[in-house]
This record gives sequence, C-alpha cells and structure tokens, in this order.
Amino acid sequence: MKIDAIDAFYLSMPKITAEADGSQDALVMRVRCGRHTGWGECEASPLPSIAALVAPMSHGACRGVGQVVLGERLEDPDDIPRIAGRVRYECMDLLQAPHAFSGIEAALWDVLGKARSEPVWRLLGFQQSFGKSPYASQLFGDTPQETLERGQAAAAAGYRAMKFGWGPFGKGELGADVDQLMAAREGIGPDATLLVDAGQIFGEDVAAAARRLPALEEAGALWLEEPFAGHALAAHASLAAVSPKVGLAGGEAAHNELMARNLIDFGQVRFVQIDCGRIGGIGPAHAVASHAVKKGISYVNHTYTSHLALSQSLQPYAGLASHRLAEYPVTLKPLAHELTVQHLDRDSHGEIRAPDAVGLGIDVDLKAVGRYLVETEIAVKGRVVYRTPALD
Amino acid sequence: MKIDAIDAFYLSMPKITAEADGSQDALVMRVRCGRHTGWGECEASPLPSIAALVAPMSHGACRGVGQVVLGERLEDPDDIPRIAGRVRYECMDLLQAPHAFSGIEAALWDVLGKARSEPVWRLLGFQQSFGKSPYASQLFGDTPQETLERGQAAAAAGYRAMKFGWGPFGKGELGADVDQLMAAREGIGPDATLLVDAGQIFGEDVAAAARRLPALEEAGALWLEEPFAGHALAAHASLAAVSPKVGLAGGEAAHNELMARNLIDFGQVRFVQIDCGRIGGIGPAHAVASHAVKKGISYVNHTYTSHLALSQSLQPYAGLASHRLAEYPVTLKPLAHELTVQHLDRDSHGEIRAPDAVGLGIDVDLKAVGRYLVETEIAVKGRVVYRTPALD
Repeated sequence: MKIDAIDAFYLSMPKITAEADGSQDALVMRVRCGRHTGWGECEASPLPSIAALVAPMSHGACRGVGQVVLGERLEDPDDIPRIAGRVRYECMDLLQAPHAFSGIEAALWDVLGKARSEPVWRLLGFQQSFGKSPYASQLFGDTPQETLERGQAAAAAGYRAMKFGWGPFGKGELGADVDQLMAAREGIGPDATLLVDAGQIFGEDVAAAARRLPALEEAGALWLEEPFAGHALAAHASLAAVSPKVGLAGGEAAHNELMARNLIDFGQVRFVQIDCGRIGGIGPAHAVASHAVKKGISYVNHTYTSHLALSQSLQPYAGLASHRLAEYPVTLKPLAHELTVQHLDRDSHGEIRAPDAVGLGIDVDLKAVGRYLVETEIAVKGRVVYRTPALD
Repeated sequence: MKIDAIDAFYLSMPKITAEADGSQDALVMRVRCGRHTGWGECEASPLPSIAALVAPMSHGACRGVGQVVLGERLEDPDDIPRIAGRVRYECMDLLQAPHAFSGIEAALWDVLGKARSEPVWRLLGFQQSFGKSPYASQLFGDTPQETLERGQAAAAAGYRAMKFGWGPFGKGELGADVDQLMAAREGIGPDATLLVDAGQIFGEDVAAAARRLPALEEAGALWLEEPFAGHALAAHASLAAVSPKVGLAGGEAAHNELMARNLIDFGQVRFVQIDCGRIGGIGPAHAVASHAVKKGISYVNHTYTSHLALSQSLQPYAGLASHRLAEYPVTLKPLAHELTVQHLDRDSHGEIRAPDAVGLGIDVDLKAVGRYLVETEIAVKGRVVYRTPALD
C-alpha cells in the first residue's frame, strides 16, 4: 500500500468556553491507503495543525507534514517508525508538526490493523489487551462543596479512582486547596484512589507546590500531576525528592518520546502520562511505555477527548497487565461523544480496555462529523492549499 | 500604551530548495502601540505560525496568540514577561505558539526602546554593548575540496572563526567526515577558530558521535554542535562525559527557557545557542544568558536569517563582555539581506555588536517586504481570520 490521501477535519462545539475542557473541539485525520481507510485524532489546536499539514517548505528541515508523508509506502509495522523518523527530521523546525502528525500516525496503525485484520495492540507485539481501571477525570468544582458532590457522583457511578484537576486549585491560598482536597476525599469515600492534577499552576515554584504536600498526603492522594511546566525537570526532581508518599505524574505535554523520557530520567516522575494525540502517535508512546517498564514506573494514558483518542492512547500499554490505571473523561462534550460509533464503556468488572477489534476498533460517525464540521480554507499565493474535505 | 495591532508578513524567495538554509523565507511581525511601531522576526514556518496567531480558542489553555496579546498594556520592561507569562499559560497546548510569539515579543522590546529612546540591551539592564567575534556560519561543501574553498574564502574575507555544518556530515562513513574536518581546518588556516555543526544527524547514537571525536580534536574544533536531537539530554550528557576537549553546543531548538536550561543542567553543553525567533523572544533568551553566566558556560546567539533577527539575538548577551562569539550568517538569500535597511557589518576590528540605537536599531525595508510578500488568506466558517496586511 501507499499513503494516497490525508484529510483533516476540524470539528467544534458551537460555543467554546475558557474552561480547561479539551473536548470542545477536535481535529480528526482520515488516511487512505488503497482500499483501506484509517482514522486518528490529534489533541491539538486544529487550525495551526492543519497549517502544519499543508505548510509550504521553508528549507530541507522545515517542511509541511503532508509533503513528507503522502506517497509513502505502508506495508508493515516497521514502516510507521520509518515514516515518523522522516517527519522528525524533515519537519524538525516546524514546531507544530508532532501535533499534526499524531493523528496521522494513529490512522496509519488503524489502516495497517484493518489490512491485517489485527488489533493495533497486537501489531505492537502484545498478546492480550488487559483491563484497566478507569479513573473518572474531572475538574475541581468552584467550591469544595461542588467538588464533594462531583466525587460523590463519580463514586455513585461506580468509579473506584477519581481525578480532580485545574479549576481553583493552586490559584489561591493554601487553605482553600486544603479544603478542596478534603472535600474530594470525603466525596469519593475512604477507599477510592484519589488523583490530583495541578495543571502546571506552580510554574517552577517548588516551595509553593511543596506546601500542598501535607494535605495531599492527608487526603491520601496517589499522585500529584503536573505541578510545574512540562519542561521544568529540575523543579519536578526537587519536589520528588521531598515527596516519598505522593508520586509525581506528568508527561501529557510531551510532543516527542525524548521529552517523556526526560521527565522520567531527570524529573523523577513515578507516573508518566502520554497523549497519543500529541506525542507523535502510538509508536513513540509505546517506546515510552517500554522505558517506563525498564525504569519501574507506571505508564498511564492521557485522554480528555473522544473514544477514538481513548482507543489510540490505550494501545501503547494494552498488554502491560500491571499498569492498571487509565484516564477516562466523564464529562465529554456532545461532539466528542457523538464522534465515534463505538464507545469504550466499562465492563461488568468496571474496567475498560483497548478493543479486541481490527485497527483501533473505532468507527467515526460521519453524520456527527458533518454536524460539527468547521468549514476552513487556506490560500497561499492565490492557490487553495487546504479546504475542508468532502465527507464521502 | 496598549497593543493595538499585530500584523504578520510571510515572505519567501520565489523558489525554495531543500538545502538547510533558513533564510529562504521569513515571517516578520509588526506591532503597533499608539504612535510607535516595532518589528520582530520569527525563525519559524510562516503558515502554521500565522495560524497560531489567529487560531480560534480550543479551551482556556489553548488560545490563539493574538487574542491573548492584543489590547495588553505595554508601559515598562516588566510588562513583557508578564504578557509572555500569559501566552505561556493560555496558549499552553498550542505547540506552535512560542514560534509565533517570538517575533511579537521582540517587536514589543523594539516598541518600548523607541518609546524610551533606548536600545533594547539597555532596557535589559546592560550598560554597554560589547563587540562580538562573528563566526562565518556556512554549510559543509558536498566535497572536502568545496569545504576547503569555503574555508579559504571565509579566511580571505577576514573571519577568525568559522562554522561548518549539515551537508554530508554524519551521513556517510567516518572517513568521509574525517576528510571534511581536515579540509575545513586546512581551508581556514591553523589559527582560526573551527566550529562544527552536526545538525542532529546522530539522533541519540552516542557511539556514532563519539567516533568523530578524535578527528574533531585533531582538527582543533572548539565545539561540536547539535550531535543529537534537541531533547536528547541523556545522549548529550554521555557524549560530554567522554569529550574533555571538544565542548558540546546546542539550544537552537529551544522553544522555551526551560528547554535551554535543561540542555545546560542535564545535557552538559558548554555553549548554549539561542534563537530569539524561536525561544519566545528576547526575554527568555536573556534569562538563559543569566543562567549560562551562573553555570560558567558560554552563551551564543543562533541566527541564520536577516539582520533584524541578528539584532534580536544579540541583545540578550550584548553586555556580557566575556561571551565573545556570535553566529553571523554569510550566505543569506537576497530576501534576508534586502529585508533590513541597516546591516550589522563588521567594524574595523572585525567585530559586530548589538546596535547603539533605539529599539533593535533595525528598520524594515517595506519595498523589499513587498517584493517577497506571499499573499495568504485563512477563512474559518466563512469568515476571513487572516489576510496579508497592507504595507502602509
């Protein structure tokens, strides 16, 4: 097969708010290779990613992603890292390139799985897709009471692990955060796993983050996620050194394998969270999972969008039985829910898993795509280089 | 003052080739604040950067750069890092944002310098702009003979330091690289400073890079630049540990201050090279320069485009007398040369320096901009969100 077409679809809710909810818009990539069609999702700003796909060449190491990938040969799993290597080198100076390529790379795995009638996780070398314990991923409430109620609702819905993040956390006084943490624990009950996401709020301020540790310990939080900027390796390492109980988690911002490995090797995180819609797709995420195994830390998906993105992000560690947790967004916007025909619902044990179906096991609902489609056009020197593709 | 307008101009040579020459196109930012106009340059793929400027919001931490910056207050130097902090946080998930913001940030310094009748380096707290020894930055020839001749030409033109990079280096047998290095040394003469740029060719392969060290030592190279991917901290550290004579150089890919500091702190580079058109502008570059001073390593600009970009990239270390070297591209394409009215030519001592003039000290030649302008238009939902601005 060769890569015949790459079509990018920009979808959006009618109204976008400033809340930290990544499911309000979407960028979906459709890749056609001969008679096979694959789909993947970028967790990325759609317009700059589309521009990265169609960008004219600036020089040999700064090309649009499309011109590097189109026409490439796709016969077996080794072709995908080979193509990714070309993108890495030939799009080196185009910063947005990994975000744009992520959805394409996932779609290449989907194509190959369909062509071979195999699930993607099997193409990665796994023998089995193990059940994961989904944690309900949601925002802190504006008040502790609201957080408590969200925790109660998640517990009532059967979740045994819950994450609270962003919202007011870290933005005010220490006491306000303590109240939020205690409310979260009270809401979810004494036995559930509590995870906390600081959303980079402390920048590089280790002392400010460290002041939250006693309350995090008291609330029994398993991890503190992204206390600092994704590149703040020294800050992560300093906080890790004074936090024997609460592990640090991070990695969602990683836009290549090395960034994630640096967070493990130099930032001393104990949970590495990878979004296949950002890191360049499933291949680099799988390499990070292997590195996590080698270093004895836990791999977790990062997903806050559709179940297409969720399936992508479960593949790289589907076969790692002891890496148990999985992020599971529970407040998806209608767009992100309706986008896929199938959903990775919890089974009778309350677990989710990467589908035992060919490719990513997720079909895109074209009617839903049509409902949320954002018509977009880019012209350079009077020539249209991108126009929202037809949904045929 | 407040930021009234941000206009992005995409310029290009009529024909772009695959050579590693970043001066073939350009993205220039014009910022207007009241009666003052500032200019800055992004070292970035133009189309995705323009898209990053005008991108619709995806969520609260993924906004277009323009909507964050427009309307902001600009009164004194502290306002610029404050605005940059907003961009960092509110455009966190828009990967291309730092590349787009870099030219805007530089233009903000230019505006403020003009408003206060001060050079930018003085706004940064320096008392003096010291002369730098420019190194002629060029590509390896396709053959050792060609490299030798380029070295001879640079020496004849009066350069006392020369850098050769990219081209065939690292792509073939060790012997071919040895021949190139010996030819480079022969061409530039025994006393000139020789610098070598591997252009990330070794990926993470420490052994492959280490095999070049004896020849680099024999040729008397001061540094080996970017042997590995910009994020390959462990690989950099491993090579540094076995290379007491040839220092490692890197940092041009840094798109934020922390990335550059990580290369120093964890990658053990001895020369940190910062492009103000990529790292988010002059402010973060200045912070990296301060970190380099603290760590006892050398700061160097990275510049392969116009003298507007060159002035930008000299500002952050203009006042650091002992940081002597400066990258000086000697094979600029006509577009990059004609773009600016002034040029930072070598003085009678063969030195260049950040101009002792208000702002960045560089005027943009509007006629040249007009000659190379790439008309571009982006429409979302039928509404034009970007159209090449008028050159008035």
